[in-house]
Amino acid sequence: MKNIVILGASGYTGAELVRLLAGHSGMRIKALSADRKAGLEYGEVFPHLRHLALPRLCKIEEIDFTGVDLVFCALPHATSQRVIKALPIHVKIVDLSADFRLRDPAEYQKWYGGEHAALELQKTAVYGLTEFYRNEIRSARLVAGTGCNAAAGLLPVLPLLKAGVIDPDEIIINLLTGVSGAGRAAREGMLHAEVSEGAHAYAIASHRHLGEFDQEFSKMAGREVKVSFTPHLVPQNRGILTTINVRGAAEAIYTALQAHYADEPFVYLLPFGQAPATRHVRGSNYCHIGVVAERVSGRVLVFSALDNLTKGSSGQALQNANIMLGLDERLGLEMAPLFP
Amino acid sequence: MKNIVILGASGYTGAELVRLLAGHSGMRIKALSADRKAGLEYGEVFPHLRHLALPRLCKIEEIDFTGVDLVFCALPHATSQRVIKALPIHVKIVDLSADFRLRDPAEYQKWYGGEHAALELQKTAVYGLTEFYRNEIRSARLVAGTGCNAAAGLLPVLPLLKAGVIDPDEIIINLLTGVSGAGRAAREGMLHAEVSEGAHAYAIASHRHLGEFDQEFSKMAGREVKVSFTPHLVPQNRGILTTINVRGAAEAIYTALQAHYADEPFVYLLPFGQAPATRHVRGSNYCHIGVVAERVSGRVLVFSALDNLTKGSSGQALQNANIMLGLDERLGLEMAPLFP
Amino acid sequence: MKNIVILGASGYTGAELVRLLAGHSGMRIKALSADRKAGLEYGEVFPHLRHLALPRLCKIEEIDFTGVDLVFCALPHATSQRVIKALPIHVKIVDLSADFRLRDPAEYQKWYGGEHAALELQKTAVYGLTEFYRNEIRSARLVAGTGCNAAAGLLPVLPLLKAGVIDPDEIIINLLTGVSGAGRAAREGMLHAEVSEGAHAYAIASHRHLGEFDQEFSKMAGREVKVSFTPHLVPQNRGILTTINVRGAAEAIYTALQAHYADEPFVYLLPFGQAPATRHVRGSNYCHIGVVAERVSGRVLVFSALDNLTKGSSGQALQNANIMLGLDERLGLEMAPLFP
Amino acid sequence: MKNIVILGASGYTGAELVRLLAGHSGMRIKALSADRKAGLEYGEVFPHLRHLALPRLCKIEEIDFTGVDLVFCALPHATSQRVIKALPIHVKIVDLSADFRLRDPAEYQKWYGGEHAALELQKTAVYGLTEFYRNEIRSARLVAGTGCNAAAGLLPVLPLLKAGVIDPDEIIINLLTGVSGAGRAAREGMLHAEVSEGAHAYAIASHRHLGEFDQEFSKMAGREVKVSFTPHLVPQNRGILTTINVRGAAEAIYTALQAHYADEPFVYLLPFGQAPATRHVRGSNYCHIGVVAERVSGRVLVFSALDNLTKGSSGQALQNANIMLGLDERLGLEMAPLFP
Repeated sequence: MKNIVILGASGYTGAELVRLLAGHSGMRIKALSADRKAGLEYGEVFPHLRHLALPRLCKIEEIDFTGVDLVFCALPHATSQRVIKALPIHVKIVDLSADFRLRDPAEYQKWYGGEHAALELQKTAVYGLTEFYRNEIRSARLVAGTGCNAAAGLLPVLPLLKAGVIDPDEIIINLLTGVSGAGRAAREGMLHAEVSEGAHAYAIASHRHLGEFDQEFSKMAGREVKVSFTPHLVPQNRGILTTINVRGAAEAIYTALQAHYADEPFVYLLPFGQAPATRHVRGSNYCHIGVVAERVSGRVLVFSALDNLTKGSSGQALQNANIMLGLDERLGLEMAPLFP
Repeated sequence: MKNIVILGASGYTGAELVRLLAGHSGMRIKALSADRKAGLEYGEVFPHLRHLALPRLCKIEEIDFTGVDLVFCALPHATSQRVIKALPIHVKIVDLSADFRLRDPAEYQKWYGGEHAALELQKTAVYGLTEFYRNEIRSARLVAGTGCNAAAGLLPVLPLLKAGVIDPDEIIINLLTGVSGAGRAAREGMLHAEVSEGAHAYAIASHRHLGEFDQEFSKMAGREVKVSFTPHLVPQNRGILTTINVRGAAEAIYTALQAHYADEPFVYLLPFGQAPATRHVRGSNYCHIGVVAERVSGRVLVFSALDNLTKGSSGQALQNANIMLGLDERLGLEMAPLFP
Repeated sequence: MKNIVILGASGYTGAELVRLLAGHSGMRIKALSADRKAGLEYGEVFPHLRHLALPRLCKIEEIDFTGVDLVFCALPHATSQRVIKALPIHVKIVDLSADFRLRDPAEYQKWYGGEHAALELQKTAVYGLTEFYRNEIRSARLVAGTGCNAAAGLLPVLPLLKAGVIDPDEIIINLLTGVSGAGRAAREGMLHAEVSEGAHAYAIASHRHLGEFDQEFSKMAGREVKVSFTPHLVPQNRGILTTINVRGAAEAIYTALQAHYADEPFVYLLPFGQAPATRHVRGSNYCHIGVVAERVSGRVLVFSALDNLTKGSSGQALQNANIMLGLDERLGLEMAPLFP
Repeated sequence: MKNIVILGASGYTGAELVRLLAGHSGMRIKALSADRKAGLEYGEVFPHLRHLALPRLCKIEEIDFTGVDLVFCALPHATSQRVIKALPIHVKIVDLSADFRLRDPAEYQKWYGGEHAALELQKTAVYGLTEFYRNEIRSARLVAGTGCNAAAGLLPVLPLLKAGVIDPDEIIINLLTGVSGAGRAAREGMLHAEVSEGAHAYAIASHRHLGEFDQEFSKMAGREVKVSFTPHLVPQNRGILTTINVRGAAEAIYTALQAHYADEPFVYLLPFGQAPATRHVRGSNYCHIGVVAERVSGRVLVFSALDNLTKGSSGQALQNANIMLGLDERLGLEMAPLFP
């Protein structure tokens, strides 16, 4: 039984980790931190988990890391790097913030501002896209969870660049996301009255996950790749849907995806011509990918759907933690989606 | 490993059973029926479950019941009684329809119309409210799942009648329910455009679950009890919330609930003064109950929240099936609620 | 053409006033204040109104009240009383806050805390429930808009107390409300992820609008009346539905409502046996009332539905302003509800 | 005062016409037809309009067209053409179905199947995109309302093709739409439980409105133009948002839109760099258009938002009817959007 600590457990990704760990046979939660809510029972902060026997929320400095195998760090970026830097060397870390995703310090500064406080660690961090970095994750001390939108865009496109079956200069990603990706902090724009019954694009041509797209797409293609990426907010709590317009041959694209994901436990390629829906992966660690030929010759539509809190962050984090600790990577992650 | 068949697997309660059984260590699905969708892969009907290895949908008459231990019958009422009557005697049955809930044939006729086609079976059926009929369920061949609204009203009130701490003539139940209780059949009134962004009362003073209230409340009180019951439809997919106005002493009421539910694995009494929310039980088998004193002396508010598709139907059905088959009744049912 | 000022125009009730005044033939907006957003174009704060020609948002102290006929004050309570106290004597005022609703200073202190800063004004304020105070409103300088929940509960019940057709000690009000009543301020509990897909009771036995119920019900009954009142939050933006359980004769109750509302332009009594829905009054100034007999003899269900931002606050405010300024009280208020 | 008839008044576009006409000073409703609901009061079918004095629903053959100036035909396609063919010659017609949108009978057959029953009329019908066919509409007898998705895509793109500022071979339209566009007929896929909390693409590369895009874009460009068009269903009742990826210079694109829409009463170009939201046009006849430069040089994002039931169908229909009858085209259409 591995001992686990969750830092920053009062946000949605923290709660999702607790939900997943509640059904995990190989890990137990030793401590849960949340600075401003230290002292509270976890069920006071997240009443849906009140039936679980959990340690009270505490401050990070109160945690005894002796015997702790792995820390999930669900703190805000910038805070995360300072906290992780100070963790004892024997603990492994899965970071859910943006702090260790970008390898180039200049890119970090460009997208997140300010200087990085843990440059040495940043160099050693492994990018947490399991399906592409599994070997590196196995031996890593620090794994950087991907952005949820980044995961949703990378999973369907990376195999296509790898196989060389699409034009790298013509990748147009439209993305729909729900509200939980914005976290639990109170913001006017995330009020029910502002979000429900509407849809709009946001962070147009400037979303921070572009940094991850640029890094991973360019690395895979062996040349600079700059995608067009437009995220939209739609009234759902969980779920990301990407609609990706590419140039290539539909059959070659489908084959490349099939080849890459044939043995993956959580990425599921739909029959050719079918498109996924966010409601069909809600609450699960599955990512559904679909391919449909456009009526315009030479264009193909590739789609992906995943749950931003699960495969897009906490589920991915747990999958990586399983690998880092030598466990079956599917442990705690095989619950079916919740529909309706 | 017990062999299970689900009849009527193309509706929401059928899909919920499949979801729950996917995580069950002691049962395997041997057949899934759905007359009009016979021949289809289950994942074509419910794409959220497409990752599961499941038998194709078939017609009931195609099923070989040899070696089958238990049948979940998720057919519409009236159909259910005819199908169950014809099942081989060695299979145990959990029926999710209304057909075997009412012991008095006259009551059945009053609330559902038409004559009952399986009166002999009806006499032997056990009412499936686990927390009150566990012993009878253990040795039953046929268990009749409760109405989802009935479960939500019975669980908080029955212990109060049992303990004699409320006035049986002053029970006023207001109930809020989501749309999945109405099933997957296409109906104008359940369209997104009709349901979202609104709320209204329905089946006022005439809801069929009144038959179950009358039967169970009167039986427990040892005299006729007729509650006032007003259900409302609110725009959520899953979840029932009851707000029950009773006359009695708050402390005695709280104590009676505490006594009855102290050892129950799925009914959770909140700290005194707190009220539950449907979102905190979504997708789980938990029922949360709360007690709050009214400002008007002598009146008390009792609340319950449960997921109509889980504790209100398919979860309850599985809990009962576990008991009938001699398994741990919690098997397959301990997943945490999904929030947000 | 009357000159109008709206103080506190950056909240939802302010925006609703602007929406209604945009279609009003007898009033024009002279100034819009919003302290923290002073200097902004109104369309920057509420893009749905960007097509209107409106003055920029300003600070209150920048407003020249010369020639101003009436001020709508949509400020938070406590602030409102201080601002209104300082307004020049020639302007009429419709206050949408809670500051002038309660006539007894002790009651104000009990429900809102702190001492009232404008006790003299409080004495002269008229309670803004148009259908019961129309004559007083006609000659008032200061009208206090009712609470939105209060309006929804008072309209169906006051005529019954007036006619003496119900037992004043057995009034049980259950109420469902949407999120816009909580305003536009960012609060965790009003986030889409927290509100959608769920329902719960709040402010149980302690909601501030109880002060208004106590005052108005007791006054009408000529004795102390204390109702049981339980509000619930449901995932809709606009709309309040009340379900009121009373003791009395259904026919007498229906007749009393018919008598009181026969000539009212905005209160609509449904045919006997029908219940209203919030979606059928959304965006309008109409209040729908319905009466249904309970199956339990001697009990009756009375329902009301209104839009909390229109008939529950800004629409009511405009109706009162029309009366105060000698205009047709229906001006600017006859738009049909928006459905779906 | 013009006399108006609405055929097919029991659907959402019919109800929207009635809502708009309720506030129209120059038209009165003489008859409302709905074959299967003939005999009912309108308020029984659409309770939100129960306060209006309206004729009962009737069958088409019961209508006396003497003195009728204009007929809105909100019937399903195929039915529409047969009914319109039989209307007396003195009535003008605005058809909201798809029957008269496509000028080429072969195109009609390709997208809608079956032969057209009124080919002579089809030749004379004017395409109802007001901002491009105003002169033709003025003298038309029969105007064919556009598809709602078509309107949302044509309005932002047509001025760019006209001005020659984009590459006609690189137009990629992603569109989000709500549920009311699918009408009031009961369909499993439009149930609240199926639509809420999710998003998916549908009719990929095969949506019928492609016929309108092909026709109008090609006509404007003077060459064949085939766009890529992917519609998505998102959980909102009203509203269409387009996100259009084009090649061109952002400034030239903005200028072309500014030039075309400077004097239009209902099309509103947002400040450069801003994108619209469906919630800001809900319930109104406004279309908001925005332009944002992509970070990829040479690419530009153009957005539009409109209410599918208003500017996308019934509002557009009324605007055209106003023009056909020599009235101010804004009559009955200047209500502000409803938010929140």
